[in-house]
Amino acid sequence: MTDTLPIHDLVGLVQPQLDRLNRELILDLAPGHREMLPLVEHVGGFRGKQLRPVLTFLSGIAVRGASHGGGLGDDVVTVAKVIELLHTATLVHDDVLDGGSLRRRIPTVNQMAGVEVAVLLGDYIYAKAFHMAVQLPDPTAARWLAETVRVICQGEITQVLHRFDLAWSEARYFTVIAEKTASLYAAACRLGAYYSGSSEARLRALEEFGLELGIAFQIVDDCLDLDGDERIVGKSLGTDLSKGKITLPMLYLMQRGPAEAERLRSVLGKSEAEALRRLHSEFPLEHAIAYAMEEAQRRIAKAQASLSLLPKGPGRDALHQLAGFVLTRRL
Amino acid sequence: MTDTLPIHDLVGLVQPQLDRLNRELILDLAPGHREMLPLVEHVGGFRGKQLRPVLTFLSGIAVRGASHGGGLGDDVVTVAKVIELLHTATLVHDDVLDGGSLRRRIPTVNQMAGVEVAVLLGDYIYAKAFHMAVQLPDPTAARWLAETVRVICQGEITQVLHRFDLAWSEARYFTVIAEKTASLYAAACRLGAYYSGSSEARLRALEEFGLELGIAFQIVDDCLDLDGDERIVGKSLGTDLSKGKITLPMLYLMQRGPAEAERLRSVLGKSEAEALRRLHSEFPLEHAIAYAMEEAQRRIAKAQASLSLLPKGPGRDALHQLAGFVLTRRL
Repeated sequence: MTDTLPIHDLVGLVQPQLDRLNRELILDLAPGHREMLPLVEHVGGFRGKQLRPVLTFLSGIAVRGASHGGGLGDDVVTVAKVIELLHTATLVHDDVLDGGSLRRRIPTVNQMAGVEVAVLLGDYIYAKAFHMAVQLPDPTAARWLAETVRVICQGEITQVLHRFDLAWSEARYFTVIAEKTASLYAAACRLGAYYSGSSEARLRALEEFGLELGIAFQIVDDCLDLDGDERIVGKSLGTDLSKGKITLPMLYLMQRGPAEAERLRSVLGKSEAEALRRLHSEFPLEHAIAYAMEEAQRRIAKAQASLSLLPKGPGRDALHQLAGFVLTRRL
Repeated sequence: MTDTLPIHDLVGLVQPQLDRLNRELILDLAPGHREMLPLVEHVGGFRGKQLRPVLTFLSGIAVRGASHGGGLGDDVVTVAKVIELLHTATLVHDDVLDGGSLRRRIPTVNQMAGVEVAVLLGDYIYAKAFHMAVQLPDPTAARWLAETVRVICQGEITQVLHRFDLAWSEARYFTVIAEKTASLYAAACRLGAYYSGSSEARLRALEEFGLELGIAFQIVDDCLDLDGDERIVGKSLGTDLSKGKITLPMLYLMQRGPAEAERLRSVLGKSEAEALRRLHSEFPLEHAIAYAMEEAQRRIAKAQASLSLLPKGPGRDALHQLAGFVLTRRL
């Protein structure tokens, strides 16, 4: 189940496309006024694993099977760029929401240039992404991604409205993480396949793959916030607790009875350090993490099973391995 | 030059379309989760003069001349809805930037539900607007408006980066207000005409009309912030001074010499009340306002002159009157 292959081996298959994407994104974001250039360049430094464009490219390759001939069309690269920009815009705004000061070890936009510039720069990047999407002759990506961003925001707003809500349920947790996180993974896979001429059945299989992978990714993220190694994860941990976000391991602990739920309530809203210390010392956190990771494993197994509809080939193999990687990541 | 006709007389011509727009917008914004409904309904209360959709409808009527037959296509209504939603999204985010607590005498979203929800709800409304735009069979509106939002954000960011900048110039002020405000008026006029089958020459004339009208509108807005009646304007005044935004009347005062500019610098950043009190008692504010209003008048005259390319008819007449109204507004 767990696959220890480092991600860069999997990415090799799409390295040329990824290099092109990163080269072009710098030019695409070029602002009309030179004083904005440092901001735009700074945001380029947030570049991480770039899982979403990798999924778009691998999905495009996977639907063609062994006979793909190596060629992904220009439109697939455009779609991947749009998705990476949309993701970047959500990061810039997420940092405003969390009051975060560091992202990938460099200052957040709000830290560097203030909340006002960060809100506006996020809007700027969203607009740039939509503008790029509507240049495509086929409007499918623009339509799908506008709806996806709406769903992402809907999920995030719902999460904010239910912080500190002890009546929160697993069903609603899964809905919210599907909306706020997995929907963009699902779109990345579906649209990579669509713009590579996929059949409807394969589109749907890849969309499900992305959705389940995205849900697993968020579950692991939520576990790392409670149980990760801060030096490896590269961001401050315990923020879900201090913000009152109730994630899957917390839901497990709350299910152990009303008294336990009440005790947990007293941990929420504390400082990150105190909340983490109390959670580790007063609750069976290991069981809670194991419970959540089992759910993530089931999601990854489901994602991998959905690949059976695709033709055998290096694209399908790489997606299968990538899904396994989600469970072993420590950052 | 000054026209004292109240705006609702001008709007009568497009009242059926405006009523339809307001009816449909409530349904269009309906969220997927019921807990978001109060937020979406609340934002509906920000509805103001709705100048942008009025301009879209009047432009559509104006390009057809006297023989328009009263029919504006469904696509024109969609374009007007998209523009009104984009404007609403910028208002929600502007209130976050300004820390505003009241808008049109009701609480801002950040005041009611917090900064996090306000940032996300603005993003939600942007996404909804773009999703609506990409449903149009002709992608012109989606392309034009995505670029317009990028330009709006670019203008707003530039303004934030140059607060308290005494080297700020009239040329840069005009560029920024054209970007942050007038670009959406220009788009409203241009796209209303485009989706009514306008010729390229008339499109351009109406785009220029919207641009000059929008610039004049922002100049008057900037004057009202320094010299308006708070009870009539309906929002707190002096905020540009306290935020260090240097507008046209201030640029006039700065041009009176380095000593005067230095004295003005000491007013910027003070509380609204103190900054306004000092500006009124220590500087020739009346001259500064008159100087700015003369510029606004020139812009309105230019806007009205650009209408000469359009066929005679009630649409053209209404646009002409509407432009005059911009100079006399007190709120």
